[in-house]
Amino acid sequence: MHKWQAVVVVLSAAFTAQADEGMWTFNGFPSADVKAKYGFQPTQDWLDRVRLASVRIAGGCSASLVSKNGLVMTNHHCAHHCIEQLSSLSAKKQDFIKNGFWAAAPADELKCPDMEMNQLVQITDVTAKVQDATKNTPADKFAEVQRSAIAAIEKDCATSDEFRCDVVTLYRGGRYDLYKYQRFQDVRLVFAPELPIAFFGGDPDNFMFPRYDLDMSFLRLYGKDGKALETPAFFPFSAAGAKDGELTFVSGNPGGTSRLLTVAQLMMDRDVRWPGTIARYSELRGLLTEYQLRGAEQKRHSTSNLFGVENSLKAIKGRHAALADPAFFESFVKAEADFRKKVDANPKLKKAYGGAWDGVAAGVAKARLLRKAYVALEGGPLGDLFGAARSLVRYAAESKKPNGDRLREFTESRLPQLKHQLTGGSPIYPELETALLSWSLVKIREDLGPDHPAVKKLLGGKSPEELAKSLVGATKLADKKVRADLFTGGAAAIEASKDAMIEFARLLDDDARALRKKWEDEVDGPIKKNAELIAKARFEVFGTKTYPDATFTLRLSYGKVLGFSDDGTAVAPFTTIGGAFGRHTGQDPFALPKSWLDAKAKLNLETPFNLATTNDIIGGNSGSPMFNQKAEIVGLVFDGNIYSLGGEYGFDEKVNRAVAVDSRAIVESLKNVYGATRLVDELTPAPAK
Amino acid sequence: MHKWQAVVVVLSAAFTAQADEGMWTFNGFPSADVKAKYGFQPTQDWLDRVRLASVRIAGGCSASLVSKNGLVMTNHHCAHHCIEQLSSLSAKKQDFIKNGFWAAAPADELKCPDMEMNQLVQITDVTAKVQDATKNTPADKFAEVQRSAIAAIEKDCATSDEFRCDVVTLYRGGRYDLYKYQRFQDVRLVFAPELPIAFFGGDPDNFMFPRYDLDMSFLRLYGKDGKALETPAFFPFSAAGAKDGELTFVSGNPGGTSRLLTVAQLMMDRDVRWPGTIARYSELRGLLTEYQLRGAEQKRHSTSNLFGVENSLKAIKGRHAALADPAFFESFVKAEADFRKKVDANPKLKKAYGGAWDGVAAGVAKARLLRKAYVALEGGPLGDLFGAARSLVRYAAESKKPNGDRLREFTESRLPQLKHQLTGGSPIYPELETALLSWSLVKIREDLGPDHPAVKKLLGGKSPEELAKSLVGATKLADKKVRADLFTGGAAAIEASKDAMIEFARLLDDDARALRKKWEDEVDGPIKKNAELIAKARFEVFGTKTYPDATFTLRLSYGKVLGFSDDGTAVAPFTTIGGAFGRHTGQDPFALPKSWLDAKAKLNLETPFNLATTNDIIGGNSGSPMFNQKAEIVGLVFDGNIYSLGGEYGFDEKVNRAVAVDSRAIVESLKNVYGATRLVDELTPAPAK
Repeated sequence: MHKWQAVVVVLSAAFTAQADEGMWTFNGFPSADVKAKYGFQPTQDWLDRVRLASVRIAGGCSASLVSKNGLVMTNHHCAHHCIEQLSSLSAKKQDFIKNGFWAAAPADELKCPDMEMNQLVQITDVTAKVQDATKNTPADKFAEVQRSAIAAIEKDCATSDEFRCDVVTLYRGGRYDLYKYQRFQDVRLVFAPELPIAFFGGDPDNFMFPRYDLDMSFLRLYGKDGKALETPAFFPFSAAGAKDGELTFVSGNPGGTSRLLTVAQLMMDRDVRWPGTIARYSELRGLLTEYQLRGAEQKRHSTSNLFGVENSLKAIKGRHAALADPAFFESFVKAEADFRKKVDANPKLKKAYGGAWDGVAAGVAKARLLRKAYVALEGGPLGDLFGAARSLVRYAAESKKPNGDRLREFTESRLPQLKHQLTGGSPIYPELETALLSWSLVKIREDLGPDHPAVKKLLGGKSPEELAKSLVGATKLADKKVRADLFTGGAAAIEASKDAMIEFARLLDDDARALRKKWEDEVDGPIKKNAELIAKARFEVFGTKTYPDATFTLRLSYGKVLGFSDDGTAVAPFTTIGGAFGRHTGQDPFALPKSWLDAKAKLNLETPFNLATTNDIIGGNSGSPMFNQKAEIVGLVFDGNIYSLGGEYGFDEKVNRAVAVDSRAIVESLKNVYGATRLVDELTPAPAK
Repeated sequence: MHKWQAVVVVLSAAFTAQADEGMWTFNGFPSADVKAKYGFQPTQDWLDRVRLASVRIAGGCSASLVSKNGLVMTNHHCAHHCIEQLSSLSAKKQDFIKNGFWAAAPADELKCPDMEMNQLVQITDVTAKVQDATKNTPADKFAEVQRSAIAAIEKDCATSDEFRCDVVTLYRGGRYDLYKYQRFQDVRLVFAPELPIAFFGGDPDNFMFPRYDLDMSFLRLYGKDGKALETPAFFPFSAAGAKDGELTFVSGNPGGTSRLLTVAQLMMDRDVRWPGTIARYSELRGLLTEYQLRGAEQKRHSTSNLFGVENSLKAIKGRHAALADPAFFESFVKAEADFRKKVDANPKLKKAYGGAWDGVAAGVAKARLLRKAYVALEGGPLGDLFGAARSLVRYAAESKKPNGDRLREFTESRLPQLKHQLTGGSPIYPELETALLSWSLVKIREDLGPDHPAVKKLLGGKSPEELAKSLVGATKLADKKVRADLFTGGAAAIEASKDAMIEFARLLDDDARALRKKWEDEVDGPIKKNAELIAKARFEVFGTKTYPDATFTLRLSYGKVLGFSDDGTAVAPFTTIGGAFGRHTGQDPFALPKSWLDAKAKLNLETPFNLATTNDIIGGNSGSPMFNQKAEIVGLVFDGNIYSLGGEYGFDEKVNRAVAVDSRAIVESLKNVYGATRLVDELTPAPAK
């Protein structure tokens, strides 16, 4: 875990990416550098096509258009929730998670209850507008004033429900861009393999390479007319795949990185945030692991939850391990000291920016004090029922306010997505809801203490188990029609509701809101204001030719197919389909599905299965297309290796690898395992003569 | 959590305890300081009597003799395991955990299956012997050579099974004392209240004050003749109890503190050890929480396990939080820098000790690399069945070696305890064994990776669940006669055994032993050798009038009854029995038992229930007697407040408090709730006329 130590120096000293480092914005892509290094210079046309062929899944994944008829490719784990929901909703209670799904005919394609996809259609620089709004604003009002200014910009942009507009904070406040998305809410499932091959190796192999996963699914966008959407910008499949050393691009939505944080913020991550989150997720993991033993149905309906927890946990442990490395951490300390020295050496810079680090530290000190209560009250009770109740209660209050005064998730430009979530037909599992709500109430009591007024009010003398059971039993919010009626009825209907879960959410809301306000004023405000100053100082000292921290917005990374050395062992960049059969033990999670065992003789076992590249990615990039310079698909990103987890804080080209399903394995398995001819033909149309 | 910051300076600069700080050895007690501060000077007779009236529970608690007939007082949670075992073994499957236990007549006192108590009868300084043995020994052989020397000293001392002898490393190697204990293996349960009042407030109130717990139990030592043991040294009960501000002593066995560690070791605790342990225990906590829902019997037999995990977890989170405080941590960094400066300023000291800190750091660096594998292979699979199998397999191998070459727990002086553990009649719960073994196998695979040769060998292509189920189903080790026969049969019998669990333990043993050897050579050796040098330097620079880190050996602490300020709120030092009724909600863990609700009218509600004092204690002190200058019981230590958890690293008299059951509540409840007249009469005999 001491392999990242060289990184930070690169980042902060020269502050240009010398390795294949960087999650670049589409309006700041270093085409000339790529040309210099790889001999290929992306044109503006090429960039535009790639941008439009890339889509984001609102829930937190990336995806790509892979045919002119709206066909979308993403990971199995990005569609897992939809696949699970469709199983629950299917008339014959078919288990599509276990058995896979294939719409042999177009009419068999099934609508995902609450999936939304977004396509980035426009980027506008709004830095001046946003920064002007907060000029001379004191730290404790900074976040509030900025939020209001951003809400106004977003509302002007989102001219109809068809669009989503987000002001994105780049470089921690050095730049603000307005991202305008086309939104698609009719997304249908076309194909999914069985979970045992999609997630072959399970949690033990997660974030590992070599790897043997068919972590893919296909969906399709439909228009308002109920027909498959026409999508002129898409990625065709590469017939040849990628070679060792070949230039590869990845276009997707990395969720977040922390490469520009101050040392005070990194200490908080290392000492408070990650240990706290590891404790919480580990406990939940243990609980869900044992919950799965309650029965087959309980296992089925809790699997995507457990996967989510285990996946996050492994990622967070990796991030924590990076910061726990003394030399790596020391490199941040040194880089920050050097940077501050440069600022302090110039009287003008010193006056403008010299105090910014202490300003951030003051916000962090408050965060340390408030975090536990914030997580308890604002992270709060778990479960879809409580989530719906809280959204409705807050929607009632927020919808009466002017747009600029609202909590961000209730501003005008966010309402279409809220409505989609609330009124979608996601099935709800009362038994799981009870278990999660009960456990999370115990955590709230633990974090605040049994004598905290909010805890006394919430529990009202009941035990967490008893309360959870009675709330889940009494609420009607599991019925999507009830939720839809309340949302449509607006504040009047919601405020009149006596639904048990809504009354419960109401009980918590004042305390939670008060804390959220405190957090905005005392933590967010000072940090945002001072981070903006540091960002400006960084531009002045190191220049602007750099990339911002990830923000779950569209980024383009370049790199190449490349193996690596894992503690002295050379790891080749490709695995083969034959290797998966070698790893098969017959025991979960190393059990290939029957379809694969039956198809073995038909398969070309030499077909490359997964591959590793130097592309700089992170969580949120799941489902991203990996493509060559002709913008043809050579892979489907689904993971990074274990060293990629430290990528949160710094990129180390020696060992950090993106991991993808090879395009050739996708075609080979669709053809020879699944006989999905219609899909293969759509992905690889016969060349025009 | 930023209240400890002043502490370290005291510890390392002047390095004498100015506050009521210190877990003092009986041969190094600062009687004159107590006289100066409190006007009472303990005499050697007084100290001897207190020492002999204090007993240690081998499993990890403290206790005291409270009558001349071998009556022992300790916490309920220290006897929980025995109470649970006696429930399982009772003919009518009575639940003594839920309903309490009371031997109305002497003949009703029930023998605990595997409890052992030790009484410290002699302390001998063996520093020269131990230090001479390792003179000129290189770091990588240091631990091994020392272990061998210690085994010889211990063997010479333990002249029969009646004695246990331990060489105790004090001041991290500054001094070595030989502790000789009388051992008692016939310990019988006399009285235990119901768990809901023993642990009123449960995990939410654990480590909190104000508090309302009757965390007590009474046991009795029996001699080899099967009669109650005569114990002339004991603590009589105080009729009046303690007053606010009164001088109090606590005699007990604090398990361990880390106040003398180097910064490199503290960083390892903060960044690696505690986060890793928090993850592991949190997951186990979640698992057991959900396991309890399998049914009433499962709940009963897993409760003491869950309590142990939750208790450790809360303690460890507190320790981690102390180190995560930037100012507190910085105070260690500064103190160490000052100390090293003083050493380096003197050429003689510099030559002898100057390199010692880097020597410790080198051992720590190795520990960082090896820890995960060490925990996996040596911490290994969980469960009593595996534990017994591993002990037997190792006993077979170790018993053939000369005493000095053996693993420490198999040296001659340790064998009586091993035999007692293996041949005792502890009931074993196959369902729980399967759950724990299965989970821990998943952890081993996770920590080492599925491709590690040891993992492949262990699992042999099976899933952890499947393997655990088959091992627990096949082994005969749940039968105490089988274990006893194997132990008595020795190496020949054990090596001939084809028991499934024994074969499984064999499979793991080479890898685990190899790693343990590596750890001893590369981690323990360098750390022990260099810590000894630092200890010597400390004596030379700061003098010897100080106390060593805790080592689960008998220590004496002085202090006084005192409230504290909890984030601005004044907390009084006493609670009352009436307060418990005020806190009663009827819902677990805030539900008083029926016996208490029925007795309310008879109880004096003003009786002090729990009290807080400045005595410096830590985990392992549970069950310690708290007494006045006449060596009369005024309380029964069962906990510390939340600030006491930072006591691992430093003592802050402003907020660190020991928490005890008041002697008056003990008598009041025995009389008026339980009608345990026989016991009350024994504790408070009519004064001789």
